[in-house]
Amino acid sequence: MAQVRNKQVVLSNYVSGFPKESDMEIVDSTITLKLPEGSNGVLLKNLYLSCDPYMRTLMNEDSTLGLGRLTLGSPMMGYGVARVVESGNPDYKKGDLVWGITKWEEYSLVSAPQFFKIQHTDVPLSYYTGILGMPGMTAYTGFFEVGSAKKGENVFVSAASGAVGQLVGQFAKLNGCYVVGSAGSKEKVELLKEKFGYDEGFNYKEEPDLDAALKRYFPEGIDIYFENVGGKTLDAVLPNMKLHGRIPVCGMISQYNLTQHEGVANLANLIFKRVRMEGFVVSDFYHLYPKFLEFVLPHIREGKVVYVEDIAEGLENGPAALVGLFSGRNVGKQVLVVARD
Amino acid sequence: MAQVRNKQVVLSNYVSGFPKESDMEIVDSTITLKLPEGSNGVLLKNLYLSCDPYMRTLMNEDSTLGLGRLTLGSPMMGYGVARVVESGNPDYKKGDLVWGITKWEEYSLVSAPQFFKIQHTDVPLSYYTGILGMPGMTAYTGFFEVGSAKKGENVFVSAASGAVGQLVGQFAKLNGCYVVGSAGSKEKVELLKEKFGYDEGFNYKEEPDLDAALKRYFPEGIDIYFENVGGKTLDAVLPNMKLHGRIPVCGMISQYNLTQHEGVANLANLIFKRVRMEGFVVSDFYHLYPKFLEFVLPHIREGKVVYVEDIAEGLENGPAALVGLFSGRNVGKQVLVVARD
Repeated sequence: MAQVRNKQVVLSNYVSGFPKESDMEIVDSTITLKLPEGSNGVLLKNLYLSCDPYMRTLMNEDSTLGLGRLTLGSPMMGYGVARVVESGNPDYKKGDLVWGITKWEEYSLVSAPQFFKIQHTDVPLSYYTGILGMPGMTAYTGFFEVGSAKKGENVFVSAASGAVGQLVGQFAKLNGCYVVGSAGSKEKVELLKEKFGYDEGFNYKEEPDLDAALKRYFPEGIDIYFENVGGKTLDAVLPNMKLHGRIPVCGMISQYNLTQHEGVANLANLIFKRVRMEGFVVSDFYHLYPKFLEFVLPHIREGKVVYVEDIAEGLENGPAALVGLFSGRNVGKQVLVVARD
Repeated sequence: MAQVRNKQVVLSNYVSGFPKESDMEIVDSTITLKLPEGSNGVLLKNLYLSCDPYMRTLMNEDSTLGLGRLTLGSPMMGYGVARVVESGNPDYKKGDLVWGITKWEEYSLVSAPQFFKIQHTDVPLSYYTGILGMPGMTAYTGFFEVGSAKKGENVFVSAASGAVGQLVGQFAKLNGCYVVGSAGSKEKVELLKEKFGYDEGFNYKEEPDLDAALKRYFPEGIDIYFENVGGKTLDAVLPNMKLHGRIPVCGMISQYNLTQHEGVANLANLIFKRVRMEGFVVSDFYHLYPKFLEFVLPHIREGKVVYVEDIAEGLENGPAALVGLFSGRNVGKQVLVVARD
């Protein structure tokens, strides 16, 4: 049986602080393109890989966050879009397009496959790493389910042009809300207003007083803060929440690389303002995926919801693409292309 | 019309940092024991006054917490039990016993009365400042409604022997939970175990490593943290929460006197553990008061729920009683007696 090259991105160092490209390594491995005898698994050809902030927590030697960790020398793991090359599992057949958790390599052997099958291919396949995949479901369930969004509410989104944030803003507008986003560059702030329909946006790096910025955009306070960043931004938001406000906590990207996390001092505002702050993990909501597709696909086809991707080409560029998330180098959803079909 | 003496406890200084007895003053005022012509209000004789931590926030010159503030020279305000001396309001009649927001003085003229009428007097009247009043309802709604308590869960309570905490512990036991409390003295920790039925208790002042203490009592983690204190305790609790845990935020007494609040660094645990942290104010739940009485009165009468009060006598002792809350001087619910009938 012929072996083929299987290029991989492997973890070469456990990370503390900011991850560096050199914490990962490109390895030319090989793989036999054949499932083991009697396997119930699938053999995948990976097409598009997703770069997501939560992946940082997999690189810790000792993570207390409960997402597990990688061992040194093993390929990075994450969401991706792939084609089934061979299947020993009745749920999948050769040629199927799927999305779900895969590895950062050209081909992956998955012994207990749990993928979503891709039914709609009139949209870009890469969308299944973003708007039609985990980040899309995250924006949808975080805003509507955890955030209990109501028409006309005041919504603030941090990391607002990112994979999730750009969708929260658009969903908020579809829901008749007033929505303001913060991002880390002039270019991103322009995207917010011109591309995603945000009512207002600001560059948090140019606001020495975040509290004043929030009071400028929310003189009556914030009903929903879609939390992506944590730290100083959360602390500035808390006194600006409205009565019975909600803070769905999607992520805290500003904190993942700090060995000593920033302290949040204004939590007493939760009490008298009756604010609900709730962490969530999208996989708890995957039963809503069919409902989500029904909601979002028509909007995509009619151009009423758009999605900006930042495409990196080839596994070699994976480490830089992943590390770039934490300095905000990406504009929109960071995708890594392994192969296009 | 004869005037009578009306002793008052008035606010003499706005407070920053810890309140002192000298921030309040005893004033011999006078009052005419007659409602103004055409008044829709009531004239009350105050009997028992409640000393509660939230009252600290009324003493700020510039409070951002939304509970309002007192003006200098005006009497302190808070919950109390009173007898109606005269009524111009169809909902109240002379001789009625009521509880609700009143002032720290012998007699109060209330122009827009909103009191609960006391129907059951086979229990101590002072209980309506505690177990049968605001703190009782706070424990009940915080634990069962906001905390969504389930049988057999692991519950941690801070300020566990206080007006609210002693009840959360007992309600948790009635609900088949495992419950551990923290308090600030050996005497209080003994009360927890011997009087309130807590499974375990510890003195937080003697635990240099709160995280280690929590791991000792909750090797499998905490389902519900009933939050009364904030700051370091909250920070230690967060990594010890179980999946889908709840943190009803009742108060943060450790923070009210700090000009710079302590930072809470471990909030990222909310995300992956899907923890819901929710502030609440008991007045939002007062529609449940009849249901609460139905639940708690039989338990009191059968001796299955007990209540420890710390009684201070006379308005002169009010400032010391209130200030004492913040150094933990009180053992159990701090009550101030103005008159016994």
